[in-house]
Amino acid sequence: MGLVTISDIEAAADLIKDAAVRTPLLRFDDGLWLKPESLQPVGAFKIRGAYNALARLPQDVRARGVVAYSSGNHAQAVAYAAKLFGVPAVIVVPDDTPQVKVVATRSHGAEVIQVPMAQRESLAAELVVQRGATLIPPFDHPDVIAGQGTIGLEVVADLPDVATVLVPVSGGGLISGVATAVKALSPSTRVVGVEPELAGDAAESLRAGTLIRWPAEERARTVADGLRAEPSELTFEHMRAYVDDIVTVSEEEIGAAVGRLARQARLVVEPSGAVTVAAYLARPSERTALGRTVAVLSGGNVDPEVFARFL
Amino acid sequence: MGLVTISDIEAAADLIKDAAVRTPLLRFDDGLWLKPESLQPVGAFKIRGAYNALARLPQDVRARGVVAYSSGNHAQAVAYAAKLFGVPAVIVVPDDTPQVKVVATRSHGAEVIQVPMAQRESLAAELVVQRGATLIPPFDHPDVIAGQGTIGLEVVADLPDVATVLVPVSGGGLISGVATAVKALSPSTRVVGVEPELAGDAAESLRAGTLIRWPAEERARTVADGLRAEPSELTFEHMRAYVDDIVTVSEEEIGAAVGRLARQARLVVEPSGAVTVAAYLARPSERTALGRTVAVLSGGNVDPEVFARFL
Repeated sequence: MGLVTISDIEAAADLIKDAAVRTPLLRFDDGLWLKPESLQPVGAFKIRGAYNALARLPQDVRARGVVAYSSGNHAQAVAYAAKLFGVPAVIVVPDDTPQVKVVATRSHGAEVIQVPMAQRESLAAELVVQRGATLIPPFDHPDVIAGQGTIGLEVVADLPDVATVLVPVSGGGLISGVATAVKALSPSTRVVGVEPELAGDAAESLRAGTLIRWPAEERARTVADGLRAEPSELTFEHMRAYVDDIVTVSEEEIGAAVGRLARQARLVVEPSGAVTVAAYLARPSERTALGRTVAVLSGGNVDPEVFARFL
Repeated sequence: MGLVTISDIEAAADLIKDAAVRTPLLRFDDGLWLKPESLQPVGAFKIRGAYNALARLPQDVRARGVVAYSSGNHAQAVAYAAKLFGVPAVIVVPDDTPQVKVVATRSHGAEVIQVPMAQRESLAAELVVQRGATLIPPFDHPDVIAGQGTIGLEVVADLPDVATVLVPVSGGGLISGVATAVKALSPSTRVVGVEPELAGDAAESLRAGTLIRWPAEERARTVADGLRAEPSELTFEHMRAYVDDIVTVSEEEIGAAVGRLARQARLVVEPSGAVTVAAYLARPSERTALGRTVAVLSGGNVDPEVFARFL
């Protein structure tokens, strides 16, 4: 299986530069810097991968439109990227998706189709056939991974002596790209994934050296609703090649990190985006060993009620 | 009275570049971009002016230390800048200052002295004489104004065709610097100040062409606790020279803007920092006339209880 290369990521950086924000590193304390991807349009790093995937489609293919099935940040990102390119987007979401997310996706001009959860994939496949549209997967695609990897380029450029980069892990597209970039540019920097304990399948898989599947209903227990997916063969290969370790954090640690980020860094970060800071704060004795650390904050789309609970 | 020049501001940009974050412009909607100074160390633009003022002191003078009297963001900024230079800082605060702010200021290594409100200035003056320390005023100083003006440089660099820049107004240091920079680089761009209606003294003064003083207890009514100061002769001269207009917003509009910024831009912004977005949102019919608009978000230091109320 071919892995994404640093050249793929450098090419992505050039393609996405007008669509994604060049987020700054924000100093949090003596040892920690934050990479606030919550400040991207659509509120998450997903715009990097989605935009890169659209940008790399041949123009006539792109003009026939794109399809995504997702109720989360990826759907918003595909809708937003399609708007920037002026091409149609269809987003297939489960029929229990909160209305606020449907409205947000439509606000980017996308067509939103609500179907029972089990029919999402088949309807998306049907749309691909019927309309000649292209499916943009949330993580299992080299162009998506390369787009996410641009975060790694920026981290190393802004903090060349970074010792550790902490990255949330769900399907693994984000950490695959970031680890590829970081290891290419700074091989001695450690790349460490972070998962909720309640969805710790990638951590277990990396230790076992083989993909171990957790039932979806187990992964669904965590408050970090963006970290409930599981790695694909492609992303797991990247993790095996480039990721040093994956650690897990408790639900309490995640909530505490959301609160600290609001009060101390003035950022609205969703639970999934705060797991990296949770890992850092929960291990004070290990901070010296971590060295200069960057925590990727992957997104900031959180219900105000959930967020207020952690303030 | 000599006004700050674009050269002063360009020199400040060079001096502060390792101390302040180069904040990005974040797109909020079709017509509005945000300049999130809430992401600075200490959570406010104040680090720009404070650091520039310290940087411009002769080394032997700076080594004797600095003094500030303030309970707000300026005090934190002076303490933080002194820490970066490794020089002592004394911050004189009213004895009713919330303990959390005292702790935060001490966390930067500053000495904090609590005295009755009326004795703040006299004690600060005494410390200047006794210790040979230098007083760093919050806005009434050219080096402080030049430091804040670096925001204007960055806005024009990142959005060269900006038509309107909205800036919060309190003592006027921020808008003095920003307006000086913007008018030098892009004379056709409008610079518009924003004040709470309940502390609208600068708006009234600019219209009258002369400084009109409001009683402190009137200015204290607004929730925007960072906008309760009044302009000095120096800052008012800058406003008369470079500011096109000052508009006011209601308390309700300020609170609504804090909530919108949290939900839609994933930023924790204090009421004082949100007045610019409040002005933009409250005047939908005028948006076309404003053209491409940048709202400076001056800071993000807000009590979690106050913040949660607006979510």
